Amino acid sequence: MVALVGICGSMRKASLNRALLVAVGEALPAGSTLELVESLDLPIFNSDLGEPPAVTEIKRRIGAADGVVFAVPEYNYSIPGGLKNALDWLSRPPSQSPLRGKPVGMVGAASGMSGTIRAQTHLRNILVYSDAPCLLQPEVLIARAQDRFDAEGRLTDASTRTLLEKFCASLVAFVGRNKL
Amino acid sequence: MVALVGICGSMRKASLNRALLVAVGEALPAGSTLELVESLDLPIFNSDLGEPPAVTEIKRRIGAADGVVFAVPEYNYSIPGGLKNALDWLSRPPSQSPLRGKPVGMVGAASGMSGTIRAQTHLRNILVYSDAPCLLQPEVLIARAQDRFDAEGRLTDASTRTLLEKFCASLVAFVGRNKL
Amino acid sequence: MVALVGICGSMRKASLNRALLVAVGEALPAGSTLELVESLDLPIFNSDLGEPPAVTEIKRRIGAADGVVFAVPEYNYSIPGGLKNALDWLSRPPSQSPLRGKPVGMVGAASGMSGTIRAQTHLRNILVYSDAPCLLQPEVLIARAQDRFDAEGRLTDASTRTLLEKFCASLVAFVGRNKL
Amino acid sequence: MVALVGICGSMRKASLNRALLVAVGEALPAGSTLELVESLDLPIFNSDLGEPPAVTEIKRRIGAADGVVFAVPEYNYSIPGGLKNALDWLSRPPSQSPLRGKPVGMVGAASGMSGTIRAQTHLRNILVYSDAPCLLQPEVLIARAQDRFDAEGRLTDASTRTLLEKFCASLVAFVGRNKL
Repeated sequence: MVALVGICGSMRKASLNRALLVAVGEALPAGSTLELVESLDLPIFNSDLGEPPAVTEIKRRIGAADGVVFAVPEYNYSIPGGLKNALDWLSRPPSQSPLRGKPVGMVGAASGMSGTIRAQTHLRNILVYSDAPCLLQPEVLIARAQDRFDAEGRLTDASTRTLLEKFCASLVAFVGRNKL
Repeated sequence: MVALVGICGSMRKASLNRALLVAVGEALPAGSTLELVESLDLPIFNSDLGEPPAVTEIKRRIGAADGVVFAVPEYNYSIPGGLKNALDWLSRPPSQSPLRGKPVGMVGAASGMSGTIRAQTHLRNILVYSDAPCLLQPEVLIARAQDRFDAEGRLTDASTRTLLEKFCASLVAFVGRNKL
Repeated sequence: MVALVGICGSMRKASLNRALLVAVGEALPAGSTLELVESLDLPIFNSDLGEPPAVTEIKRRIGAADGVVFAVPEYNYSIPGGLKNALDWLSRPPSQSPLRGKPVGMVGAASGMSGTIRAQTHLRNILVYSDAPCLLQPEVLIARAQDRFDAEGRLTDASTRTLLEKFCASLVAFVGRNKL
Repeated sequence: MVALVGICGSMRKASLNRALLVAVGEALPAGSTLELVESLDLPIFNSDLGEPPAVTEIKRRIGAADGVVFAVPEYNYSIPGGLKNALDWLSRPPSQSPLRGKPVGMVGAASGMSGTIRAQTHLRNILVYSDAPCLLQPEVLIARAQDRFDAEGRLTDASTRTLLEKFCASLVAFVGRNKL
């Protein structure tokens, strides 16, 4: 049983990636939990500034969790600037980053065929800096995501649900094995 | 002779990457110009929102320029979230992005040995989306940058100056060849 | 009008990537040509050894061409080792590499959904070393390739043909603009 | 205590990466072992061919080991074609790959400043396919490697030795935690 924090890279109200993150929470084995960070609406990172209270709060939640799940839309063949900006705040100072060594899972949904392959590749590169181990397989690369959720953002596609169950089982074992 | 817009990925007042961008401007052949975008202090991109006036203004400046030069610090083995966020705004809607086909050069300064290799690799990946051709060589990967500028941010290192002159000569030819 | 050399990353007789490269040749505007390198069956690169005659011959052909088109299957989320090995031979010594500054186009076919996205990203990274400019868009990422060719390897899918015609028109202009 | 197989990406007799791999073996805690694969001199991968006996033997050795250490020189901003070719053979068929889930460490030596950053980034991307977890930190990126070994390939640099000891301690714990 693990306690996870979920972070969605999209700020949109009707985000399919937030819907996917909710579906991940529903696919977790009984006893494990996923609580979502509500917003990444932070100032642009600038080391001249002090840490915003919203950053301190996200740090606290990650620090208290066993692992993190990122839902990453793909913007410009990479992760959203807003998510990268949050990571820039969260990772400073490096020695006190709550991401250091924290086990991570990632999922992504896109309207096209690539299913956020490029964004997830960048996110894996980025997390090497924080020494945060990422679950490798199964990858959750959801293509044509708009066909898999209903108007309320509920997952309706059975094959996606099966994939998420497999992902969640692997993730819980992975987080357990790599817990700090 | 080309007119370039410079965009610095760091928000810090004493940014060495901004100092590097200024040094690029000084190394340009006579007749070519580099004007800096002052700030990337934008809201986090959200397609539910309208375009902020500051984005419209940066779009206008890029559209009017022959090319763009990015100075990219490396945060978390990638480009800064603030720079990525600016690109997310600038690239929408894709058909009207001022980056579409716009020739690009990039430089980066870091305190360590890697000289922003990873960040520049990501930026090249990202600009494929916008069909924006990037000068490939010479790469400007400035390691131990703090030893190459004085307290006022003036470039003091002769070998870096020589590299920038070579870079600028190549960039002006590249922008000329790829001008829209 | 441009003369191109085509290099297929697969050694398989019934390679869909070779079939795709043939289809690229057929989609070129009249007057432009694409001639295929028959094989990448080379020794493993070792700078202790002298250059194999087959390498010298491929170097000669690339040197004589206006540009190169690579067809890249995806093996292990990257380009095939055989193609990478050929590039390792072709690029030495760096100052005399026939790839230096040579304009490049790339295409890729895969049986799955990703259409060789990861392999093409790596190939773009790799060619930065050789200062070889790559056409960025349109990308030719052929998913479910087995459904688009007949048993003799002839392209049967109209939408793929249309994409290849757009790719070829862009490539010919790109090679013309960047010819050495 | 773990038993590791070492694979060097260079075929050169006087390879600094092989010397680095030997130094890794010497930096292992007592009781742990590193045995080197002698050569990657394999035919170019072609799924039309049967598996060469040398591939079967390397598969057997990896299967019997607790983990793998790769020493990766950087050729053309990526891993050597010969190493990639070996991985292409070793990973087929995917369900029986001895790399599947096998814990991995990587090190790299280069004469320049980048210390094989780009090659190691590609290798990490590649191993996601095989679900092979890689130790993330500390990274072993040896710049100016020629200054750190003597003419017989013995490590002479104390700071590199300290780094390797830290790497080996982390690797042994990592392999233990992720052993199949």
